[in-house]
Amino acid sequence: MNEQADIVYLDANATTRTDPRVVEAMLPYFSLYYGNPSSKYALGGHAALAVKRARERVQALLGAAQPHELIFTSGGTESNNAAILSALEAAPRRREVIISAVEHPAVLSLCAWLEKNKGIRVHLIPVDRQGRLDIVAYREALSDRVAIASIMWANNETGVIQPVADLAELAKEVGALFHTDAVQAVGKCPIDLQSTMIDMLSLSAHKLHGPKGVGALYVRSGLRFKPQIKGGQQERGRRAGTENVPGIVGLGIAAELAAAAMADEDIRVRGLRDRLERGILERVDHCVAVGARAERLPNTSNLAFSFIDSEAIITLLDRSGIAASMGSACATGSFEPSHVLMAMKVAEDAVRGGVRFSLSRDNTDADIDRALEVVPAIVAKLRAISPFGADDAPRAVGRSSGSAQGTPHV
Amino acid sequence: MNEQADIVYLDANATTRTDPRVVEAMLPYFSLYYGNPSSKYALGGHAALAVKRARERVQALLGAAQPHELIFTSGGTESNNAAILSALEAAPRRREVIISAVEHPAVLSLCAWLEKNKGIRVHLIPVDRQGRLDIVAYREALSDRVAIASIMWANNETGVIQPVADLAELAKEVGALFHTDAVQAVGKCPIDLQSTMIDMLSLSAHKLHGPKGVGALYVRSGLRFKPQIKGGQQERGRRAGTENVPGIVGLGIAAELAAAAMADEDIRVRGLRDRLERGILERVDHCVAVGARAERLPNTSNLAFSFIDSEAIITLLDRSGIAASMGSACATGSFEPSHVLMAMKVAEDAVRGGVRFSLSRDNTDADIDRALEVVPAIVAKLRAISPFGADDAPRAVGRSSGSAQGTPHV
Ligand SMILES: Cc1ncc(COP(=O)(O)O)c(C=O)c1O
Ligand SMILES: Cc1ncc(COP(=O)(O)O)c(C=O)c1O
Repeated sequence: MNEQADIVYLDANATTRTDPRVVEAMLPYFSLYYGNPSSKYALGGHAALAVKRARERVQALLGAAQPHELIFTSGGTESNNAAILSALEAAPRRREVIISAVEHPAVLSLCAWLEKNKGIRVHLIPVDRQGRLDIVAYREALSDRVAIASIMWANNETGVIQPVADLAELAKEVGALFHTDAVQAVGKCPIDLQSTMIDMLSLSAHKLHGPKGVGALYVRSGLRFKPQIKGGQQERGRRAGTENVPGIVGLGIAAELAAAAMADEDIRVRGLRDRLERGILERVDHCVAVGARAERLPNTSNLAFSFIDSEAIITLLDRSGIAASMGSACATGSFEPSHVLMAMKVAEDAVRGGVRFSLSRDNTDADIDRALEVVPAIVAKLRAISPFGADDAPRAVGRSSGSAQGTPHV
Repeated sequence: MNEQADIVYLDANATTRTDPRVVEAMLPYFSLYYGNPSSKYALGGHAALAVKRARERVQALLGAAQPHELIFTSGGTESNNAAILSALEAAPRRREVIISAVEHPAVLSLCAWLEKNKGIRVHLIPVDRQGRLDIVAYREALSDRVAIASIMWANNETGVIQPVADLAELAKEVGALFHTDAVQAVGKCPIDLQSTMIDMLSLSAHKLHGPKGVGALYVRSGLRFKPQIKGGQQERGRRAGTENVPGIVGLGIAAELAAAAMADEDIRVRGLRDRLERGILERVDHCVAVGARAERLPNTSNLAFSFIDSEAIITLLDRSGIAASMGSACATGSFEPSHVLMAMKVAEDAVRGGVRFSLSRDNTDADIDRALEVVPAIVAKLRAISPFGADDAPRAVGRSSGSAQGTPHV
């Protein structure tokens, strides 16, 4: 069953292919060095050493001061939950939280729950049409009632990057903690935590060619951390449960590979992404590149196609062997337009037509050629049968300029 | 580095070797079928289908009525935490919890925290000298103030089995939920949840030759479950976070292999365990088999050696290539005697000398031969230099009967 080999995978922000070198490194920890790292004998020590090495590798990727600032978790969602809940628990008198309107559901859902059930006041800071945080509103929300500000490093749907180092400094001024969901940034952007005032940072291995089901939470040394999953003394008492040794080893190697490849891949992947984006904008009218004028991840292009539905586009792309996304995979199941595009006030006729193309070091020039061949044809086909857009809906695909990137909508 | 191949691994309750057939089944989900199960295209569907099949396999092992009664988690600790916290949240007027004194730290630590920080009353039900729950005390603690009773199916240190089906029925009489930590039972005991009134059950893959970092929580259909990790809509909204697809696939295959092997392995492993236990009791004086007169798992033997320290025994065993445990690996780091042996009132001169031997289908007759050769010699050596036991401490190892199994201490 090798049919997946032919796929053009342009959905790296949903998940990435685990690098075969990562899998190779994990393998011995399943059936050979399978000891429990908490066990006192040699087989356990072997596993504990592997966990230690992985921690140092993640430390290096993040520029953290000490390996033990990293707590291994089951992924980005658990890390985000743990950061926010710990902050509230550590400062019980501070009953407010600041987040952005474009956070991942792993932050948004938790905060909605905290607001509804725990009486926590949640400041939802808006973004502008390019997805950039409203700094004035952020500053206004900060006070000594705020336990934690949690603002994502890079958005999963648009790739738009927030100025987290600056935001962390502002939070410090009022004694609030600062957490960043860096699940989409880690492995794609250079990060040097030591030179910032960021208190906590979440990451997830499967977004950087590591395995699913493992992640980490960075917690700055000296910070009072309140464990959420309680039990044994693993992770220095901060996250109970037998360590996912192969997964942690995989995350470590993925971090090392990302660090080594980052500089070159930034240039190469950015080139591919720009060629894809420019190519589609040239070939398709009534299409905008969402957030393209903001600072963005090198790998992400979110294109909003007017008059048609992203679900239909994704389905036809799939039939042509191209995997792309309507935004957050976690939001599927609901057919509401993306909360990110809504917050960015993407035009009404395009907000349901957003398609996220997200690349990784696995992509090639041939992938982009194929996408540029297929996407315009699919859009034209769908627009020809679209019930939206009435008379002014374009029935054909323009090959000329026609880019709507400059429209006031985005 | 193949040095681990020679080890005699007698610590299966700490963790098991992942079965190579499990690893084989997981492999394609790292780098070939790596899609996110929430994604709408074929690659995502492939992963979703694999998760579905795994759910059915776990369902079959547990005799659950429906596959969606299983929620995949990151392991036994998370499952235990989720069960108890969900029960308290779903019934806010019920502010009491019942657990046993011999629960795993994943239950004990959480409950200690709930008592201290949330004003929850925790009934800690004692056990008798064989580790069996005090049913009278359990009955007395039950009332309409109890949100949940959580009693482990089988103890990790002694293998002693509790009558969980009966305990569940008693809990139902007062409208309390019943949860069981079956991390040590699943794969070793036949389980048929449909024929019981158990509401929730925790399991962890790495205890049944599956991978570390994945587990499940069974939640009976119709029960109001309150998710602990919040975010996306994975696991029908009951456990957010990108699914650990390879891990879940591995758990599914591990469940299937356990179901197939259980009847035969029960007999074979029990035979090995009994030969080990009887052999040591015959060769070593002042040694008791803890909980041996209770119903026990077929694989576990907890032997308490008077006058010496389990840590020293474990260290010398390790030097001879035998891996065994001083009890719960999760309790390491502390040098207090095991809370389980304390609760069972193991004699003062032996309570620090408990060694847990736990077997699995990986063990052979040769492993037992080797242990029977090594253990008595190590005990003799340590006793010869023991500061405890004063004049009456035996300095030599008896080869005759001398079993202390029948002493009133245990
Ligand atoms: C920005 C962001 N945060 C958090 C997550 C959650 O990570 P995980 O699904 O590994 O728990 C994701 C991915 O789904 C993400 O893109
Ligand atoms: C009885 C029992 N419950 C819970 C656990 C916790 O499982 P895990 O370490 O996989 O989270 C264990 C094993 O450590 C156990 O033996």
